[in-house]
Amino acid sequence: MEEEGIVKRPSEGGESNGTGAADGISAVIPGWFSEMSPMWPGEAHSLKVEKILYQGKSEYQNVMVFEVLVIGGGDGGVLREVSRYSSIEQIDICEIDKMVVDVSKQFFPNLAVGFEDPRVNLHIGDGVAFLKVVPVGTYDAVIVDSSDPIGPAQELFEKPFFESVAKALRPGGVVCTQAESIWLHMHIIEDIVSNCRQVFKGSVKYAWTTVPTYPSGVIGFMLCSTDGPPVDFQNPVHRIDERDELNKTKGPLKFYNPEIHYASFCLPSFAKRVISSKTN
Amino acid sequence: MEEEGIVKRPSEGGESNGTGAADGISAVIPGWFSEMSPMWPGEAHSLKVEKILYQGKSEYQNVMVFEVLVIGGGDGGVLREVSRYSSIEQIDICEIDKMVVDVSKQFFPNLAVGFEDPRVNLHIGDGVAFLKVVPVGTYDAVIVDSSDPIGPAQELFEKPFFESVAKALRPGGVVCTQAESIWLHMHIIEDIVSNCRQVFKGSVKYAWTTVPTYPSGVIGFMLCSTDGPPVDFQNPVHRIDERDELNKTKGPLKFYNPEIHYASFCLPSFAKRVISSKTN
Repeated sequence: MEEEGIVKRPSEGGESNGTGAADGISAVIPGWFSEMSPMWPGEAHSLKVEKILYQGKSEYQNVMVFEVLVIGGGDGGVLREVSRYSSIEQIDICEIDKMVVDVSKQFFPNLAVGFEDPRVNLHIGDGVAFLKVVPVGTYDAVIVDSSDPIGPAQELFEKPFFESVAKALRPGGVVCTQAESIWLHMHIIEDIVSNCRQVFKGSVKYAWTTVPTYPSGVIGFMLCSTDGPPVDFQNPVHRIDERDELNKTKGPLKFYNPEIHYASFCLPSFAKRVISSKTN
Repeated sequence: MEEEGIVKRPSEGGESNGTGAADGISAVIPGWFSEMSPMWPGEAHSLKVEKILYQGKSEYQNVMVFEVLVIGGGDGGVLREVSRYSSIEQIDICEIDKMVVDVSKQFFPNLAVGFEDPRVNLHIGDGVAFLKVVPVGTYDAVIVDSSDPIGPAQELFEKPFFESVAKALRPGGVVCTQAESIWLHMHIIEDIVSNCRQVFKGSVKYAWTTVPTYPSGVIGFMLCSTDGPPVDFQNPVHRIDERDELNKTKGPLKFYNPEIHYASFCLPSFAKRVISSKTN
């Protein structure tokens, strides 16, 4: 596993928990980065910081760089993975925080490599506003790689945003959006599923995977399609082609494969009971 | 999720990392329990302790009780799950540390409920010694719910122990043993797989699941069978029967179901490459 990364947390809106560690590094353990949040009360995850490469505060969040892996939209990680597919003709990215892009390009050239793809158009701005002016039925897929719903990303978890996404998608188009941890946030997930079920008239599915640097070690995704040709998210029509020239140049996949794709839709019973009561 | 549990860590053999937190609670964050270990350098996982119910030191480890869930052999958690199956006639348990059993019975009656099953025989003693005197071919299944390979559980990860297990199993009998995290310990996993491949002549498979209170959020298992009738671990012959009287009385399963069983054998590519090079 790579151990470099960017940690982005809201610079406002996070309640202090009385330990003085809400901002991260670190009143708690000198030389360590600790994440505590009202989003995961009673838990703290700490990573030893070998060297602080960069520390700054943008208009939207604290941006810190050190040798831990976290992948987010503006860092180019999703772009890098999307760029593996030669069937994709155009990739727009809308990132609110230019500092994330700049910092990723400077410190993580292997991660930010996605920005170099000629199909990519970078827009610095608010995704909510961007989607409002997109012509109806423009996109085949929308990927929302957001931070948690406390702070600047809050709107990205609300129904009006999902309605904008649905309008921007072609019939049978798909959206994948960050959807929190089954261990920590079933109540948030329940609301997201409920909102998506009302907005998206195709398939609505929840999937999850493991990320060792996130609180609880897992993160989830909502996958939804608009009314149109049916989409079977668990059994995709196109498998990633290891022989594809574009994929080859980016090196072998470290985590993803068809089995792990299938498995990510298998849910523990406690999550299944909540989610299947709200989904199809 | 239940948030009660027992944390058992070796009382000897853990190097200090200079923060004074190697023993757990807690020079690091007052009122919090922190786990740091040379097993996961550079990481610490902390859980806020609402109330310390018990704190003691046995001959083998520090035993602490507070409101966090961790399931281990002597706490009765595995027994509770095994007891759901009416097809099982006899269950022996060998636990080295009587204090774990006593503390679990006192503070976690819902977890320790497995000890009440009339099929259960509790032996307090060393599992390695116990297995050496077991007649050849005694057991259909052996479950090893050990702590990490630093400290008293070290022998349980070594080849002579696996050889004792194999001898104690009938032909085609199966063993399930704790096998660390793919995110933190691929080098240990590689050795375990290699040892098991040499000892067990049937199927040798690696599976994993998510446990939010463990470092990295995941834990793995080795599943092996002895030479005999073939065993397909990923697609078991017997599915758990929700109508079974024994299972009914223990309440619905919170996590386990047939899909999650299947999914636990699907590995990320980086783990698959290492494990499949050593396994069948």
